Amino acid sequence: MSIIEKAAAIGGGVIGAGWVARLLLNGIDVAIYDPDPEADRKVAEVMKGARRAYKQMVPGGLPKEGKLTFAKTIAEAVKDADFIQESVPERLDLKHKVLAEIDAHAPANAIIGSSTSGILPSDMQVAMKRHPERLVVGHPFNPVYLLPLVEIVGGKETFPEAVEVAREIYESIGMKPVVIRKEIEAFVGDRLLEAAWREALWLVKDDIVTVEELDDIMRYSFGIRWAQMGMFQVYRVAGGEAGMRHFMAQFGPCLKWPWTKLMDVPELTDELVDKIAEQSDAQAHGLSIRQLERIRDDNLVAIMEALSKQNKGKGWGAGALHNDYTKRLAKLASNKPKASKAAVKAKAEKPVKKAKTPKKKKG
Amino acid sequence: MSIIEKAAAIGGGVIGAGWVARLLLNGIDVAIYDPDPEADRKVAEVMKGARRAYKQMVPGGLPKEGKLTFAKTIAEAVKDADFIQESVPERLDLKHKVLAEIDAHAPANAIIGSSTSGILPSDMQVAMKRHPERLVVGHPFNPVYLLPLVEIVGGKETFPEAVEVAREIYESIGMKPVVIRKEIEAFVGDRLLEAAWREALWLVKDDIVTVEELDDIMRYSFGIRWAQMGMFQVYRVAGGEAGMRHFMAQFGPCLKWPWTKLMDVPELTDELVDKIAEQSDAQAHGLSIRQLERIRDDNLVAIMEALSKQNKGKGWGAGALHNDYTKRLAKLASNKPKASKAAVKAKAEKPVKKAKTPKKKKG
Repeated sequence: MSIIEKAAAIGGGVIGAGWVARLLLNGIDVAIYDPDPEADRKVAEVMKGARRAYKQMVPGGLPKEGKLTFAKTIAEAVKDADFIQESVPERLDLKHKVLAEIDAHAPANAIIGSSTSGILPSDMQVAMKRHPERLVVGHPFNPVYLLPLVEIVGGKETFPEAVEVAREIYESIGMKPVVIRKEIEAFVGDRLLEAAWREALWLVKDDIVTVEELDDIMRYSFGIRWAQMGMFQVYRVAGGEAGMRHFMAQFGPCLKWPWTKLMDVPELTDELVDKIAEQSDAQAHGLSIRQLERIRDDNLVAIMEALSKQNKGKGWGAGALHNDYTKRLAKLASNKPKASKAAVKAKAEKPVKKAKTPKKKKG
Repeated sequence: MSIIEKAAAIGGGVIGAGWVARLLLNGIDVAIYDPDPEADRKVAEVMKGARRAYKQMVPGGLPKEGKLTFAKTIAEAVKDADFIQESVPERLDLKHKVLAEIDAHAPANAIIGSSTSGILPSDMQVAMKRHPERLVVGHPFNPVYLLPLVEIVGGKETFPEAVEVAREIYESIGMKPVVIRKEIEAFVGDRLLEAAWREALWLVKDDIVTVEELDDIMRYSFGIRWAQMGMFQVYRVAGGEAGMRHFMAQFGPCLKWPWTKLMDVPELTDELVDKIAEQSDAQAHGLSIRQLERIRDDNLVAIMEALSKQNKGKGWGAGALHNDYTKRLAKLASNKPKASKAAVKAKAEKPVKKAKTPKKKKG
């Protein structure tokens, strides 16, 4: 059962619509605001894919879907929301404008999460005149309705309690929140992705590999490893009985060899963009984006399900979470119509205030 | 059925023993040379783990295992081998010494693969006085008996035909060879890994996250994605109907933002090594390396099996390969004792000579 009942989504692109899908499929009503005249069609398409994936995850029947309404203004969308997720394009001026409006019209106790993948929450909350203390970054990964991770980052003015409530909210919709200890641009996931992406662009530009070959190199090797253990634990195990210290001693010195291209950013010339786009077309082997999307979703569900049966049936990593999540959804499905709205509402109204004994913010 | 019958493994560390396990479990006899007095115990432990994993993969019974012999010298190990895999420590002087000796004593038509994760084949083959043209890098990923990828890299003196025969050999033992088009240090997989690893070290050093948090960020998000599609295809799909060009236009500019630490290499001070080792201990939650290794192997098998059922039953990526591989092993198991040794042998004796119409080396 979620601790929120009514959510608002500001922005309905790939990420915003992914949030809408996750929320609705958890039985939560969502009001969405997106000025794009095609927003309803786009959101409906994402919902179709998400529903299909969730039916595989919870074959016994899904919870009653939340109600989706399209609001004409931000004010209308947020006015009675417990939780607002902002997913507008990555421009600070736009974020300021939108967050100021959300802040002005949302209930004082509503938590506001931003999907930004790089902007510091401190730089965004300056635009919020009423309650900047309830803004957190809640950075998800695509597809939002399936991938569990959400990076939570608080800004200078964010109350620790807001971070905690945000964590509870994200957990209540089946996610894995990780609170980042200090705010830095791009947070953690995208820093790792960007480092790899920059290197990948060089390798393709220099004709060392095609995009398909590079992708195969990832998905037949460390990609499979990283679906279940991150790089530190993978290396711990690879170090053998001697453990992490041994691994560091062996592998550390390589870091100083001038292997990777690093600081040099490849110029995104028309030629390079063409090359990548053409190689990417070839790699698709005629499959449309929609077909690839369905294959991706089926694969993600299958991987999480496979991991859910490991570790003596307790599940491992995303698989353990998958067990909890699908059980919760099945229970929610058997409970329709929703029980105990009052209790849920009471919890949602937990005010975002600074704890009396101020907790030191982590890090 | 493999196209090789007798292999030699020079070096029996984590990687060398992983090769031994993969070869033996494919019914291929292996002679190993490793001066470590504990080599037999270490190889036996890896074999135990590999056997356990393969029993899950091929529940109907495994092929008759190849015979393992411990040779006293390199000469003895390689003297009648069709295929030799070198996995000694990453020092050029040692590679030279070992490859010279392999070259001097191996049959002229034997293919030699090196497990080096970074040294150029051109720099290694200079030590081979007889047949440098049959050396390729065949760079695998740990655990070698489970992860299918092998990066094949030829050097200046390597014949294109040697690359082709190496590809057939690796395929015949269930692997996914990707031929790297130009030789560069660290090839492709390790360049991507190193870029991410360097960034990860900074994030931990700067207390943005602990190693456990960083690992969770990977395995609950892009790790699951990369088990099934590499980064280019993932981004293609994320770009939506507008495709790769759209994605590049959106995401490209971020690359110039000074987000990642890049060229700065964190100094591996005692303090940093201690921090990582201690956080890694905490992350293990009391599980021993052996326990983690079994969990990892179970997870890898389960993920590949889950992917083997996708894409309308045809399998996807490592899952499609998993289908072929496990079917081949099951067939091999039902064929014991080995049939048609003569035919196999004939194929193995295919000489490594330059094709009469010299094929242009790719790239």
